[in-house]
Amino acid sequence: MQVDIITIGDEILIGQTIDTNSAWLGHKMNELGFSIRQITSISDNKNAIESTVENSLKHADLVFVTGGLGPTKDDITKSVLTEYFQDELVLYPHIADEIEAYFTSVGKPFLEVNKQQAMLPKKAIIIRNDAGTASGMWFKKEEKHLISMPGVPYEMKGIIERIIPHLKDEFNLGDFYHKTIQLQGIGESSLADQISDIEKQLESEHISIAYLPSIGIVKIRLTGTAQQADLIADHLETIKQRFPANYFGADDLSLQAALGELLKDRKMTIGTVESCTGGAIAQRIVSTAGSSAYYEGSIVSYSYDLKEQLVAVNHDDLWNHGAVSQTVVEQMAQGGLKQLGVDICISTSGIAGPDGGTEDKPVGTVWVGIATKDRVYSKKFQFKHNRERNIESTVVYGLNFVRRVILGFEDEKTN
Amino acid sequence: MQVDIITIGDEILIGQTIDTNSAWLGHKMNELGFSIRQITSISDNKNAIESTVENSLKHADLVFVTGGLGPTKDDITKSVLTEYFQDELVLYPHIADEIEAYFTSVGKPFLEVNKQQAMLPKKAIIIRNDAGTASGMWFKKEEKHLISMPGVPYEMKGIIERIIPHLKDEFNLGDFYHKTIQLQGIGESSLADQISDIEKQLESEHISIAYLPSIGIVKIRLTGTAQQADLIADHLETIKQRFPANYFGADDLSLQAALGELLKDRKMTIGTVESCTGGAIAQRIVSTAGSSAYYEGSIVSYSYDLKEQLVAVNHDDLWNHGAVSQTVVEQMAQGGLKQLGVDICISTSGIAGPDGGTEDKPVGTVWVGIATKDRVYSKKFQFKHNRERNIESTVVYGLNFVRRVILGFEDEKTN
Repeated sequence: MQVDIITIGDEILIGQTIDTNSAWLGHKMNELGFSIRQITSISDNKNAIESTVENSLKHADLVFVTGGLGPTKDDITKSVLTEYFQDELVLYPHIADEIEAYFTSVGKPFLEVNKQQAMLPKKAIIIRNDAGTASGMWFKKEEKHLISMPGVPYEMKGIIERIIPHLKDEFNLGDFYHKTIQLQGIGESSLADQISDIEKQLESEHISIAYLPSIGIVKIRLTGTAQQADLIADHLETIKQRFPANYFGADDLSLQAALGELLKDRKMTIGTVESCTGGAIAQRIVSTAGSSAYYEGSIVSYSYDLKEQLVAVNHDDLWNHGAVSQTVVEQMAQGGLKQLGVDICISTSGIAGPDGGTEDKPVGTVWVGIATKDRVYSKKFQFKHNRERNIESTVVYGLNFVRRVILGFEDEKTN
Repeated sequence: MQVDIITIGDEILIGQTIDTNSAWLGHKMNELGFSIRQITSISDNKNAIESTVENSLKHADLVFVTGGLGPTKDDITKSVLTEYFQDELVLYPHIADEIEAYFTSVGKPFLEVNKQQAMLPKKAIIIRNDAGTASGMWFKKEEKHLISMPGVPYEMKGIIERIIPHLKDEFNLGDFYHKTIQLQGIGESSLADQISDIEKQLESEHISIAYLPSIGIVKIRLTGTAQQADLIADHLETIKQRFPANYFGADDLSLQAALGELLKDRKMTIGTVESCTGGAIAQRIVSTAGSSAYYEGSIVSYSYDLKEQLVAVNHDDLWNHGAVSQTVVEQMAQGGLKQLGVDICISTSGIAGPDGGTEDKPVGTVWVGIATKDRVYSKKFQFKHNRERNIESTVVYGLNFVRRVILGFEDEKTN
């Protein structure tokens, strides 16, 4: 089953808006078992809409159109599609009432132009929009389907979630199943190499595997039929057991949320002492709602002076070894443990770039330290990216380093 | 002059990668004076590439193709395009040498498959890629142009920057001019309302105006001919003078970089004491290269205890007024000024959400404080978003609050 996605609106063409709708839709439909043939962004223009819809309906079984459903005069998608499908716009009174109630609830006047949004095609299936006033429209023509939705991301997503059961029925997607796990700190090709035996078995069972990499993290997704759910779970369990220090969670769980769950489970508190990351690890921890249950606070000791004053790094060590060194990063973590009064403290010191690199310590050299009441751990990383990615890599590797310490994986390697 | 953009690769179709390349290209070409007709994402597949290129060349004057130029067998763009333009692949020896030198420099083996990247179409113009091993290719067919580039964003951008002068020549774009200014803390519609007189004049002079909003910031872009450069500069100057406390910089200068320039200029150092932002302001300051010239460090006092211990907030005030209060945020800023030994210190305390709101202090209530040696300032904000946007809004309003204090705009209003 082939899907095409069409987005309408100049804001995407001129790069004012990044087309995240198509990415979300593509991901969602791919998970449902559709294959995505083409994504097209066009202008709010009758000819462009007609010819693109015509072309997509020729090749795809199902076409999604987003955007162009607002009440302003620029937004012509509804009338063009209604004409294209030889339908006619009629007033849906209960939708007019709902839109009026919506305007009343947010204290805005209900204007004639808003009432236009209750004028909808007679033969199409109208899909309720819980988050706004532009309804979704599901047109059919022979064996082909076109679903038109507003371009506001959360309105579009609400409509899709609502119709997923109907899509499954209509396109017989019922027996489709997938599951994802996430691993940190192991590259895609190294991973593929170490599970080639599992890949072979998956192939024989007609379960497909996908690797989805991002900075420091690889997701593995297995896709099969609903009958294969247990089999898929078994295979993922095998992979998890093969990489226990790398596996941190299923599906879309963030690394910081996974760490938060672990800290809550162990009743531990955490703090950070950051230099090159400048608060980025703290910020990531705090991005998880409810983080006050385990996060106490941080010190960003960016300057030499503050490393001495706030976390008691030894003056001579700092000047003899430099801020980017094992001894300094370990003292930072230990100082933070004490100053912040936490159970575990992570510290960072590195050269994010673009300047500041030397022959011994090139840009991308980063030391990460972790102190607990019993021990101090440290690790040197050599990243090779720009400033932004070096900082992001430090955050991701650092967060999982904390998990590894708590789970005991760092104790096995060293004495 | 019409431009089409085609991106090749399954990772965009299935939503694994968000298509930021097309947004960047669309923005850049729009600024150069092209109009963007269509953006299409397709699979790495001969038929799809041929039919999409055929269709785009029919309607557009210039077509950009990104992606599908890697050395692996999936990447077929080069051979398909070479065949389409009736060209042939030949070895470019100096490019082979450069690729080999590149591999040697990063300590990787130079394999036969890498040498393939020096096999390039004979008649096309080959565009040097400074950041990677896949060259750009500029094909011409009658009056139409197609430029193929790798999909890696920084490689694609490098190639575009290199060919901009040639695009201007080839498409006579020389007399096109635009300039952007950025304002913080004033909404798009309020802004439009307050410069409606200027808008009218611009219309009579055939200079177009665009408003580009993001969280807490609106960019204003004026577009005209090169002959109108001075006129455009005059109009923007008028707008700047009308909103002196909101204007922070031209073009793409970030707010944190603008603040950094100001701090360097005044020879001032800065620190932050953060609660609800959890280090996000520090992280934003540090994201600017060279920030160690003015940034010393931060304290994230997330818990009540650390507010007392690290920045000496008065125990009774904290428990009587709560952490989200004027007195606490002012004490945090003053405590940070002393502890961090800086010239100016910003503090935050608020309820980011989703939980923790009360009737008096709903989710989105944020106090921001600023201490200098002479004074302490504070301001209450009421944001109405989700956790992520409330934090981001605090960062943006907070950074400009610091600028306003340094520039004296906050002294006029109060005693």
